[in-house]
Order: sequence, then C-alpha cells, then structure tokens
Amino acid sequence: MQQVKEKKFPVLEIFGPTVQGEGMVIGQKTMFVRTAGCDYSCAWCDSAFTWDGSAKEDIRQMTAEDIVNELRHTGGASFSHVTISGGNPALLKNLGALVEALHNQQVEVALETQGSIWQEWFLEIDDLTISPKPPSSKMKPNLHVLDDILERLQNRPKSAYSLKVVIFDEGDLEFAEKLHHRYPNVAFYVQTGNDQVQEENNERLVSDLIGRYEWLIEKVMERDTLNRVRVLPQLHTYVWGNKRGV
Amino acid sequence: MQQVKEKKFPVLEIFGPTVQGEGMVIGQKTMFVRTAGCDYSCAWCDSAFTWDGSAKEDIRQMTAEDIVNELRHTGGASFSHVTISGGNPALLKNLGALVEALHNQQVEVALETQGSIWQEWFLEIDDLTISPKPPSSKMKPNLHVLDDILERLQNRPKSAYSLKVVIFDEGDLEFAEKLHHRYPNVAFYVQTGNDQVQEENNERLVSDLIGRYEWLIEKVMERDTLNRVRVLPQLHTYVWGNKRGV
Ligand code: SF4
Ligand code: SF4
Repeated sequence: MQQVKEKKFPVLEIFGPTVQGEGMVIGQKTMFVRTAGCDYSCAWCDSAFTWDGSAKEDIRQMTAEDIVNELRHTGGASFSHVTISGGNPALLKNLGALVEALHNQQVEVALETQGSIWQEWFLEIDDLTISPKPPSSKMKPNLHVLDDILERLQNRPKSAYSLKVVIFDEGDLEFAEKLHHRYPNVAFYVQTGNDQVQEENNERLVSDLIGRYEWLIEKVMERDTLNRVRVLPQLHTYVWGNKRGV
Repeated sequence: MQQVKEKKFPVLEIFGPTVQGEGMVIGQKTMFVRTAGCDYSCAWCDSAFTWDGSAKEDIRQMTAEDIVNELRHTGGASFSHVTISGGNPALLKNLGALVEALHNQQVEVALETQGSIWQEWFLEIDDLTISPKPPSSKMKPNLHVLDDILERLQNRPKSAYSLKVVIFDEGDLEFAEKLHHRYPNVAFYVQTGNDQVQEENNERLVSDLIGRYEWLIEKVMERDTLNRVRVLPQLHTYVWGNKRGV
C-alpha cells in the first residue's frame, strides 16, 4: 500500500467547517475538499474553474496525509464529516486512500460525482451523491454506465447513496422522471439550478432562486411520476450568494 | 380491531401535496395531516391554533378511513408520503390505525412530536422527528421520558428517527449541546426559530430568517461539541412566509 499512500491528488480548495447546502445530507456540518479536473463540461457548471484552466495555478498535488493534515489545520476538532467534491473526484483511481485516512479518524465522508465513472472506493463512501446531468447541461450521460454503478451499490444501505438531478426546465424534468422510473428504489432528489453564477447582488439572486424553487415545487407536486422525491434548493446560495470557499 | 378502526381523531388540517420544509426529510414531497391538541404551550408556538381554542370550530372528528379518503380526494395519486403533525399527535393513543391504513396503500408516514409521550405506534413511523423544546419555549422537557423513548427506538434503523431542536438563543444552543451529548448516536438536527409568525411582509421575513440561519450556522461551526449535526432553516417560510396550509 506504500505506493498508494504516496499517491498525489490535484486539490483546488480545502475549506470549512460549513454546512452542506445540497442534496442527501443538506445542512450537515462538513469540511470540503475540492479536486481539480472533470470529464464533463456542463453548460451551466458552477465550478468551471476546476476544469477550464482558469485556476490552474491554484492546483496543489497532495497526498491523502497532506489533505488530512490541512483539514485538521483548518477545521481543528470542529468537524467529523468531510465532503469530497469537484470537478469529478471519480477521475482519481486511488482516492480511496483519502477515504480510509478519514475513516481512521472517525470522520464520515461524502462524495459528489456525476456518475460517469465507477471506482471501487465508492463502496466506502458514507453519503454518495450521483448527479447525472440533464439535457440543459448539453452533456449526454451514458445510462449503461449508470445502470452498472447503481447495480454495484445495491448492497449498500439505502441511506448511503442517492441520485440528484439539477432542474432548469421542462426537458430536465422529463429526464428526472425517466431516471426515477428507471431506479425507483434509489433515494431521489431534484434540485433547482442556478444560472446566474456571476450575479453579485445577493438579494436579487436569492429572490430569483426562491422563485425558481417555487416553480420546481409546483412542477413536482402536480406529477404522480415524482412522488417519492425530495425537492431542494442550493441552500448555501441563500446565505452566501455566489461566494466561493464558504 | 373494529373498535380501534372506528376511533375518531381530532383533525384541524389536511393539505398537500407540498414539500416538507424542516428536519430529517426536508424537501420530501408529502401530504400533511394536522391533529388538534397539545400538552405543551410553547412561548413561540407557530401552530398555537391547534391548542389555544382559536380554531376550535375547525376541528373535525375523523376516523383513519375518513382521513385516508380525504387525503386521496385532495392529493389524488400525487403522493406516497404523509406527515402527521400537530399540536402533539402523540396524545392520540390509537393513531396507529391511521399509520397502518397509510402503509396498506404503500404510503410512508412521518411524525412530529416533542417527545413528552411514548406511543407503541412510534415503532411503525418511517420518519420520526422528536423535537424536545429548548428553554426559550418556557417549557421544561422531562429527560427521563425522553431517555425512555430513545431507548425504545434503539432497534429501529438509524435513518428512521431523529432529534430536532429549535434554536432561538445561546441558552437553546446549550440545551442542544446537552441533548446531543446525551444521545450521541441519534441523528441530530438544529433548526432556526421563527419569532415573527405574524409578519406578513415576506421579503422582510425571509431576509430576517436568512440572517438567523447564518447566525446559527456560525454558532454551530465554532463548537466541537456539535459536529455530527445538521443545521437547517424552515424552508417553507422562505417560499410561503407565514401562510398556512401550503
Ligand atoms: S460534471 Fe459537475 S464539475 Fe463537471 S462540468 Fe458538469 S457541473 Fe461542472
Ligand atoms: S409542542 Fe409544538 S404544537 Fe405544542 S405548543 Fe410547543 S410548538 Fe406548539
């Protein structure tokens, strides 16, 4: 294992503790580790700096131990949950070493990925969010890969993984319906999108986002194809707008 | 069982589908059944009409079957989750008949109660929120009763029940710390309070509530006694303000 332990991962941000603003553990007190690199390039990506080269200078190559040390340096004793986000952290074959290092400290680990790549260490993740991208992203998820991922997860506790779809429009809603129908037993979340990732006026942003949330609630409420579903906003944008690192 | 089936329950509201705005299944598409009557009288109760006599005329005595029929009449096929709320529904010894009737239709059931009374049918609830009242409520929860309730729940799946504490001030935070320390293995939620249940200007209300949420996040983030914790607002007030029945 020595080699794996010395493996380095491209890291863009380490921050917290703060609250998880989205998805299956919304509100959870957590630290964030954001890795660089993505195999997608979604039209509305809210972390394009992880893959578009604009933050290239900020990428640090860190071992699992480096990352844990920096998490402790930043968060002290005030956390027992870490969220790994990207980009797409599933690009990193050996990231299980970080998950293991965190578990050794009794720290729970959440992961967010779009579901384009399987990694064995997904089985160790406490809160795994698979977020297939809807048509408005201009990406085309491979549902066979997704089938395979969800099949491999089926012996995990139901509360350990979930699907989350970001919704901008009716086309995205149809995609969500199709997905929920395909995997009826997987915890299912729909989430409002934010198409104003440049907006700096927080009051305007929040009022617009609440309007979008109300729209999405209305759409989901009227569909009997979306019953066992949770509808959520991105809560952190209500508090901090488009600010990074909070 | 005939007698139990014919038992009537005092019901104040049946509405939905809408989203659950709070707690362990925040965002869940659900119908609401609100029962009348409470053994508490919290200083800041946001549903005082369930017990202060002001809505006495609206109370209907309904059997489990009546309630299920009205849920279907109101929500049609567009729900598979029902939240029973109050008041304190735990006052109703035979409410298990409603839980059973809903389960027979493959409908999941959530319950909200302050944890002052145990009922055997708690064991059948899919999402049970126990919400002990903090000092700002002017109530004094009996922790021995709470010990007993949580002991009886300990064979339920971890994801089937949770503690939730509403926080208005530092005294409430200390109460939350004490409770989380006492029951470290129970899923734990802290939630912002709303002390402006009469405010009709939604924009003012939302901006004030987001400010409170930010305060609570800050307080929880700095405490290493509150790590495995989720911090949430009352999401429905962001969308609908203090309006009832949504
Ligand atoms: S998958 Fe995520 S990180 Fe990658 S481009 Fe899409 S939104 Fe951005
Ligand atoms: S326990 Fe709940 S319903 Fe009863 S008085 Fe307190 S807040 Fe109101």
